Amino acid sequence: MEKNRQSSPVSLRKVQVTDAFWKHEMELVRREVIPYQWEALNDRIPEADPSFCMRNFKIAGKITAQRKEMGADYKEVKWPIIFQPLPEDMEHMEDRFYGCLFQDSDFSKWIEAVGYSLTQHPDAELEKTADEAIDIVCAAQQENGYLDTYYIINDMSKVFTNLKDNHELYCFGHLTEGAVAYYQATGKDKLLKAAQRYADYIASCFGPEPDKKKGYPGHEIAEMALVRLYEATGDDKYLNLSRFFVDQRGTRPYYFDAEHPEAVKKGHEDELRYQYNQAHLPVREQDEAVGHAVRAVYLYSGMADIARLTGDEALYAACEKLWDNITRKKMYITGGIGATHMGEAFSFNYDLPNDTAYAETCASIGLVFFARRMLEIKADRKYADVMERALYNGILSGMALDGKSFFYVNPLESLPEACHKDERKFHVKPVRQKWFGCACCPPNIARLLSSIASYAYTEAEDSLYVHLYMGSVLEKDCGGKKLDLRITSDFPWDGKVTAEVNAEAPTACRIAFRIPGWCRDYTINGKKGLREGESVTENGETRTVKDGYLIIDRVWEGGEKLELEFPMEVRLMQADGRVREDIGKAAVMRGPVVYCMEEADNGKNLHLCSLAADPAPEAKAEEKLGQRMVTVTTKGKRLVMQPEEAGELYQEYSRPEYEEVQLQWIPYFAWANRGEGEMQVFIKAE
Amino acid sequence: MEKNRQSSPVSLRKVQVTDAFWKHEMELVRREVIPYQWEALNDRIPEADPSFCMRNFKIAGKITAQRKEMGADYKEVKWPIIFQPLPEDMEHMEDRFYGCLFQDSDFSKWIEAVGYSLTQHPDAELEKTADEAIDIVCAAQQENGYLDTYYIINDMSKVFTNLKDNHELYCFGHLTEGAVAYYQATGKDKLLKAAQRYADYIASCFGPEPDKKKGYPGHEIAEMALVRLYEATGDDKYLNLSRFFVDQRGTRPYYFDAEHPEAVKKGHEDELRYQYNQAHLPVREQDEAVGHAVRAVYLYSGMADIARLTGDEALYAACEKLWDNITRKKMYITGGIGATHMGEAFSFNYDLPNDTAYAETCASIGLVFFARRMLEIKADRKYADVMERALYNGILSGMALDGKSFFYVNPLESLPEACHKDERKFHVKPVRQKWFGCACCPPNIARLLSSIASYAYTEAEDSLYVHLYMGSVLEKDCGGKKLDLRITSDFPWDGKVTAEVNAEAPTACRIAFRIPGWCRDYTINGKKGLREGESVTENGETRTVKDGYLIIDRVWEGGEKLELEFPMEVRLMQADGRVREDIGKAAVMRGPVVYCMEEADNGKNLHLCSLAADPAPEAKAEEKLGQRMVTVTTKGKRLVMQPEEAGELYQEYSRPEYEEVQLQWIPYFAWANRGEGEMQVFIKAE
Repeated sequence: MEKNRQSSPVSLRKVQVTDAFWKHEMELVRREVIPYQWEALNDRIPEADPSFCMRNFKIAGKITAQRKEMGADYKEVKWPIIFQPLPEDMEHMEDRFYGCLFQDSDFSKWIEAVGYSLTQHPDAELEKTADEAIDIVCAAQQENGYLDTYYIINDMSKVFTNLKDNHELYCFGHLTEGAVAYYQATGKDKLLKAAQRYADYIASCFGPEPDKKKGYPGHEIAEMALVRLYEATGDDKYLNLSRFFVDQRGTRPYYFDAEHPEAVKKGHEDELRYQYNQAHLPVREQDEAVGHAVRAVYLYSGMADIARLTGDEALYAACEKLWDNITRKKMYITGGIGATHMGEAFSFNYDLPNDTAYAETCASIGLVFFARRMLEIKADRKYADVMERALYNGILSGMALDGKSFFYVNPLESLPEACHKDERKFHVKPVRQKWFGCACCPPNIARLLSSIASYAYTEAEDSLYVHLYMGSVLEKDCGGKKLDLRITSDFPWDGKVTAEVNAEAPTACRIAFRIPGWCRDYTINGKKGLREGESVTENGETRTVKDGYLIIDRVWEGGEKLELEFPMEVRLMQADGRVREDIGKAAVMRGPVVYCMEEADNGKNLHLCSLAADPAPEAKAEEKLGQRMVTVTTKGKRLVMQPEEAGELYQEYSRPEYEEVQLQWIPYFAWANRGEGEMQVFIKAE
Repeated sequence: MEKNRQSSPVSLRKVQVTDAFWKHEMELVRREVIPYQWEALNDRIPEADPSFCMRNFKIAGKITAQRKEMGADYKEVKWPIIFQPLPEDMEHMEDRFYGCLFQDSDFSKWIEAVGYSLTQHPDAELEKTADEAIDIVCAAQQENGYLDTYYIINDMSKVFTNLKDNHELYCFGHLTEGAVAYYQATGKDKLLKAAQRYADYIASCFGPEPDKKKGYPGHEIAEMALVRLYEATGDDKYLNLSRFFVDQRGTRPYYFDAEHPEAVKKGHEDELRYQYNQAHLPVREQDEAVGHAVRAVYLYSGMADIARLTGDEALYAACEKLWDNITRKKMYITGGIGATHMGEAFSFNYDLPNDTAYAETCASIGLVFFARRMLEIKADRKYADVMERALYNGILSGMALDGKSFFYVNPLESLPEACHKDERKFHVKPVRQKWFGCACCPPNIARLLSSIASYAYTEAEDSLYVHLYMGSVLEKDCGGKKLDLRITSDFPWDGKVTAEVNAEAPTACRIAFRIPGWCRDYTINGKKGLREGESVTENGETRTVKDGYLIIDRVWEGGEKLELEFPMEVRLMQADGRVREDIGKAAVMRGPVVYCMEEADNGKNLHLCSLAADPAPEAKAEEKLGQRMVTVTTKGKRLVMQPEEAGELYQEYSRPEYEEVQLQWIPYFAWANRGEGEMQVFIKAE
């Protein structure tokens, strides 16, 4: 495994984010999303379908208590294993399970976001609420450690009988992620212990031993969650279970076939199945990202974790192939992935339609997970570039500027009329929604943004890599000696970055700074920076540029100050010519930010617009949509249409007439904050 | 009602088609489609799912005979009213109904095509087979006249209880169309009488009287079929029933609501529903074509029939609005309609995607039905132009050049990889299919092509309008005097048309010739023809051009010969700028024929091609794909791509490099006759 060295993300307790841009987002999560979400978990949002999440835990807790009390005398009430329709009368509901079968995970994502948030902004009242919620959840846990309300309430005899569809191990994964996060944030281990007990139970059910099940999750996440549990507790059992799930996946005969014999058509036994779940082939044989995009990148994240911890070259090679396939053939310029809503899935190579895109917010979040894990193995700019691309574009677009509404689907072109009238585009919403009955994206955004600093930095014992630029103060422990690194930046609006180091005592440490892929030439302390492959040693300090990182090896005395500048020119971008939907078109970027045109600034019928031969882009820092941002203007032209019904639908071709226009561009993440209107990222160019 | 005069299509027994182009198509139908279809109706095609059509009639006949024989003693076996899955063992099948619930209509479409074919090519053996089939069908008819095997076999108590979904009146409509056609072709009235008896029974069940049902067909066609029955028999009852169905449609409370109370959501009672069936509004209030495209144009055809026969101005106005809406906002350049596969339906105005088009062959056929009915009311070129456009393009493309395979869906752009891998395009097939279990398009093509001459001409007592140019000999009765009109033409490859008149005695008659909308300047006998609105009287002959027709009023002595020439230049066409998918693009047409590029002639990645600034199109008559046709060449350019994976998916924009190429165009209807490959109609233009 070629790698610089293995590293891990910095602890959120060792870094404080001070960045104007990201702190604002984190505050939205803290002030808007987390409290709103707690109300949602408790069915107190009048305009949203009830979640039933906490209610299910309470009912499961009641059942668990009765089981304990009555022991062998307890008679289970078996409800049929089906989705429960919403009750008409909320007051007189039975003690049944309601809501989506993966509703438990809503709590887990919430507690994870809460944990991260507490590291950046201690809040005794929020912590108290969280502790009480944890008590409710833990009360539902069975004697044997099992903890999934869907089966506890419905029918314990069906536990682990439908791994493909029923999200049991998915809920376990989220529970574990939440438990580790909350423990690492607060030091409180009640939920961590519960997750461990549940993991122990799962390890007693699944594994290579003859009497154990050979299954694996239908919706991946347990793989990476178990690795986190292993890293938090040091117990090999969890790493082994994760590896078992990864190794088992896609082997023949298919485990899901045995669970779902009806899925196997006569004469088709040998065909590949379960692409949707990435279970069509053993993972080491997979080289194309297929199926449900969120599941895919969650799996690949887990694979990367295992590869890092076990040095498994074949697994790492599969991760690299899958990474390359996604980022070279299946990713939108926004970092969006999943080009089709059919199965919320990857489409075929280079099929990246702008208007029917799925590009689920959660999928881009999963891509960031995958990217950071690849960075932990090998610091290569390509991973961080994609991470940055997804964060500033396809992920942030998932949340309104006020933090109060959300997109699942992040198209690169939107025509509200089509969203309303064309069933093929009903998945594309022209404006963000308040909350979703099946709420995966909003809490996923919340947990990502609250932990954003853990994507900015990875460290090993004597090294610190800076992948993303955000104002922050970080404490680095180098073999017992402490360094402080203070980053000041106005990213993504300005390319200047100041890094100041303080040291209690002279401390040897490698500090590496990513040179963003979008940057043509950078300077360091006003001088032109080294280029890839170059190295200079001066005054005991070695500077090297490798894999897109400026690596500085030296003994830090304290008081060092570096001024990096990554100039942010407006750049016109193009997609590979194999992307049919973007042929002859260009997109506008500046630094890591992708821009778009909106109807509010450019009028209706954006499809009539194209870039002028000399677009002469101009960037302007301004207050817009209630936020400080940099907008862009380009010269363009707009095709002049005949009045409606002046002629026939089809006429002899005449060279089009254009009027000259100034095209207004705003950051893509800020679109759809002014009501319904057309939006377009790619535009015809000459 | 503004109209020239009311007219009707000429009888197929009075016209013989001699046209090289259309005769070839008709012969394909006669030699390939009709015999194949008969085998299919009798489940003798090993590679296709059985149709069960004739089998169902035979079983229904057995049941009918038992009912008659046993009278009140007969005990009905009630099978549950569900689709019957295909039996595993064909040998030991029960006497149940199998196949689609509208399978009876397969026979009806077949007998209709047979009838038409016999007028052009008498065939005693085929007629004998048809007569025997009619015997089988008629034997199934109930004492009360009812004749639908689905209910006869399953449960007679359920008759007319699910008009919305169960296609009963649809099957009746097809039966009637087939019966009239066969009667008019052969003079044999057995099937006609059966259809009349069935119609009488339906008239006893539906109508304004208090004790009758107030419903109407879920899938329209009975409306126009009943008009045909009225015109064949002179019995007002059928016209009245048709008008009742038309008037009743879409009135409140919705009839379908009473049939389907589950479709009505609380709080949404007042919303428009049943757009899919064009039953959302009373028909006179409809001004936008919506829902299932085939159903829509079948309805509009029936509406036009009623408007013509009753002089109903409001109904006619609705027909005109719907016509304009389709042809100005919802029609492909090929005459294809129905832009979305979701519901096989019209999409919103100007939404005409090329690659995900539905453009069902049957829908274009229905558009031709509608067009001819509008022509019967008023001879206006716009109707015939669309009829011609659909015939030479979107309909003919539905059948392979050898008559052996068929398209349901006629896209304007095809990428086989997408058809195979992208679920959103699974409805688009890259190659034609042999036959369909639910076979609507192939027999619909068969009945249309066999009766093509009835679309070429309409007549009133003392007038004859020529709408389409095809070699043919027509006998016209002018108040007891006979005229022969012989048309010679090499349409669609050459614009010369010769019309020769023979008369037994001097005969006053108006003969009118359409000046095609695609024709810039035409000549008559070598001289520039009159233009719209002009009129000349010379030697007792008046020539006028009105609504796109050159109208000649005179006394014909016999021996008159007119030479019309409609020059066929290659024309580049564009869509209205509101059609987002075609913006900046052009299509190639010559005469009425739309052209396309295929991978077989132009290589892969057609999306890289664009027209040169001076495309300099050249037409060439040649033998291609085993047929005589005119192909087109234009100058073009092809964007040069980097080798795959040479760069990143997104890079800084650089003005594209092009190589000059000759683009090869073949008629659209001839695409996909050389295996799988890319195809494109619209191409980027400067």
